[in-house]
Amino acid sequence: MKNTASSDSPSSNSHSPEALQELEHQFLEAERRDPASPYYHGSAPQAVPTRRRFMLGAMAAIGTAGVSGMAAAATPGAIERTVPPDATKIQGVGVGADDGGYGSRSQFETEVRTRYPTKTTESSWSFTPLQNSMGMLTPSGLHYERHHGGIATIDPSKHMVYVHGMVKQAKKFSMADLKRFPALSRMMFLECSGNGLTEWAKPTLKTVQGTHGLTSTSEWVGVPLSTVLNEVGLKPGAKWLLAEGGDAAVMTRSIPIEKAMKDCLLAYGQNGEAIRPEQGYPLRLFVPGYEGNMSVKWLRRLEVSDMPFMTREETSKYTDLMPDGTALQFSFFMEAKSVITYPSGEMLLHKPGFYEISGLAWSGRGAVKRVEVSVDGGKSWRDATLHGPVLPICHTRFTLPWEWDGKEAILQSRCTDETGYVQPTIKDLVDERGLLSVYHLNGIQSWKVAASGEVSNVHHY
Amino acid sequence: MKNTASSDSPSSNSHSPEALQELEHQFLEAERRDPASPYYHGSAPQAVPTRRRFMLGAMAAIGTAGVSGMAAAATPGAIERTVPPDATKIQGVGVGADDGGYGSRSQFETEVRTRYPTKTTESSWSFTPLQNSMGMLTPSGLHYERHHGGIATIDPSKHMVYVHGMVKQAKKFSMADLKRFPALSRMMFLECSGNGLTEWAKPTLKTVQGTHGLTSTSEWVGVPLSTVLNEVGLKPGAKWLLAEGGDAAVMTRSIPIEKAMKDCLLAYGQNGEAIRPEQGYPLRLFVPGYEGNMSVKWLRRLEVSDMPFMTREETSKYTDLMPDGTALQFSFFMEAKSVITYPSGEMLLHKPGFYEISGLAWSGRGAVKRVEVSVDGGKSWRDATLHGPVLPICHTRFTLPWEWDGKEAILQSRCTDETGYVQPTIKDLVDERGLLSVYHLNGIQSWKVAASGEVSNVHHY
Repeated sequence: MKNTASSDSPSSNSHSPEALQELEHQFLEAERRDPASPYYHGSAPQAVPTRRRFMLGAMAAIGTAGVSGMAAAATPGAIERTVPPDATKIQGVGVGADDGGYGSRSQFETEVRTRYPTKTTESSWSFTPLQNSMGMLTPSGLHYERHHGGIATIDPSKHMVYVHGMVKQAKKFSMADLKRFPALSRMMFLECSGNGLTEWAKPTLKTVQGTHGLTSTSEWVGVPLSTVLNEVGLKPGAKWLLAEGGDAAVMTRSIPIEKAMKDCLLAYGQNGEAIRPEQGYPLRLFVPGYEGNMSVKWLRRLEVSDMPFMTREETSKYTDLMPDGTALQFSFFMEAKSVITYPSGEMLLHKPGFYEISGLAWSGRGAVKRVEVSVDGGKSWRDATLHGPVLPICHTRFTLPWEWDGKEAILQSRCTDETGYVQPTIKDLVDERGLLSVYHLNGIQSWKVAASGEVSNVHHY
Repeated sequence: MKNTASSDSPSSNSHSPEALQELEHQFLEAERRDPASPYYHGSAPQAVPTRRRFMLGAMAAIGTAGVSGMAAAATPGAIERTVPPDATKIQGVGVGADDGGYGSRSQFETEVRTRYPTKTTESSWSFTPLQNSMGMLTPSGLHYERHHGGIATIDPSKHMVYVHGMVKQAKKFSMADLKRFPALSRMMFLECSGNGLTEWAKPTLKTVQGTHGLTSTSEWVGVPLSTVLNEVGLKPGAKWLLAEGGDAAVMTRSIPIEKAMKDCLLAYGQNGEAIRPEQGYPLRLFVPGYEGNMSVKWLRRLEVSDMPFMTREETSKYTDLMPDGTALQFSFFMEAKSVITYPSGEMLLHKPGFYEISGLAWSGRGAVKRVEVSVDGGKSWRDATLHGPVLPICHTRFTLPWEWDGKEAILQSRCTDETGYVQPTIKDLVDERGLLSVYHLNGIQSWKVAASGEVSNVHHY
């Protein structure tokens, strides 16, 4: 079948020079430099242009003291506070005095999700700033986004999920009903199959946020989908399950019933609280290890069938067009992948000496077993340290100490998962799949460290 | 030595009827009911009184489209969005359209940290809403707080940590210096030794937020303290380390050098981003398994010595006064503890039938090995399921299915850690330590389920 590009498809002509310039501008803007951090180039602009600013104004409610003393913050997600010359000489901010009992990040922390320059913001995506990632978790406020019709706003007290089709007893479930079932929690990554879509033919985006920022890890909490399917009872011959979202795109995907019964969750929790609106509040399907779009957000309907539903999102989109014009369909798994997040594109190493190479590895097939790192463009490899807990279908932090001699170096990482699968080179993937398809790029990323210390995105085999 | 109460000490006379009434009022206010949730009593007030409201106004910057369409949110940490009757019939909110690239929670999620009614807000504490906890993590915005002089606001680009005393070479480190060292990440709980301080003699606070909300779990990231101490070099005879905060209280604690070299972190990361201002931004000491106040926030100085420093916080405070008038000093460890978070105080079980009992267990000595649950006030116990990963010095979620017969029941949980230590009853603790001391209450919590389904805090042996 043919991969017909939709308006926001990366295989369309949105890659105009103007669009790419705007994209790069957005990235550079967002990567406002922190002078205290070795992660950033000192010559970058110190202020985020006004049009990107957003005020989460620290405006206290009427009747609360101190309103006049508080200014609106220029940093998304932060409350602006006065910075005293010496914080030991003045009382600090009182408990709950300006945050209403729900905290926010520091006004000095400025990294944000950056949006890909699609024609509309409603069908678009945003990238997690992996260059600043630490440990295995992604803050919920920086989890990547991919919406097909914008973020739906849903009142949880009115939300229902309908389960019907080839079932013994069709039922609907309120959020309260779902929360009565036994819950499971799992730390798992979610990755968009479009992660890296610009990087097939040549290095395009400059930072790891752009090349790899469509993956994030959260602790997901919910009801096993099998619990709910057992509750309605599957009829003999049930083979597929349609998941339908309650957003403007009415996002739909077909999921094999074996997977549905194995490890899927009806997730209402993320990192210890309700899932965020942009992650499908109040309920999303979570399909571990499969491409992100199958984890349907704002879930409102599940329909059991004996065949796949051949929805728009599994025919014209989210298929992989091969060189011979046929398309791979139902390419579910996100295969083993890794990337060095520090040092990475657009960073500057100020001088030769010690650096800790740090990165993330993951696999939709299970746990990461091994990550090797090369500093000479793949001539030699060393095993990196994996930082536990090493969990299946979850980001795993790896590190390797490195003494930089001040000469040009090519940094690469290569992940092996518990099935024995080894992350391929981008060339291996292109040789196999050609350049007509944009999804499922899990090739080895190369960062060039120039003698000047500047780090840039390159292809190197 | 004598335990001299300071103005905000719970052993002072702040437990007046008025103070307790105000406290309860605060709790009831904060526990605004979600009609979709089985966790809450339906008869509770539906609105948070205005004086507790706080607007994180979704005010877009000048020049951005859509300003007029956005209203300020009444829910802390949320952006107020229009709720369409049917979200499939209208475009949703675009990527980054109103959040500046850093997401927020849903406007329908209203639980907040509640403040204990100390005389000042600067020396006070706030509780994590454990009644809504899921999985093992605490959202950073709901992590409990305990400040002695308010939240310090510190510019990270100017922040320095001085390390001196019995060292071979005194040094100062900027945040950039610290981030150059190899990093470690660990999921760990932090608990205030005052957790449960109102509950020694009789059940006082009504909800698990009040009885146990001074414990939270995050993924903490930072430099091993041993790395920095090795960098300066310890002189022979070095036995203790003073940690000093850069807040208005200039919080200070002495830490045995063995502990400092074993597993302490200079933490700059929490849940994948910079630590929050109220957790010590830009840097806190993290002392795993020890009482929370030792994990000094806004860390600015470390001094090595051959003896403890006998600071205010380890003489007049944070000691445990025994019945004979002497005080236990340096009672560092937070011993094994557990609590059932669902069902818990102030909840209502609408009818007999299936409930999943769910709770958290933890130990400062290592991993949780076993949690037993009783539904008959300790006459019989069943082993609960521990939800992995079970990590040392970390909240562990436990669950047990329960068929409620509609009769009165007393729910309890009992934790055993990897050292074999078994969580005692409150009576055991009182028999041993008396009632002059308020810290380190790790006794078994009892929740009474009345025949009406109402759940309340009781003491039961």
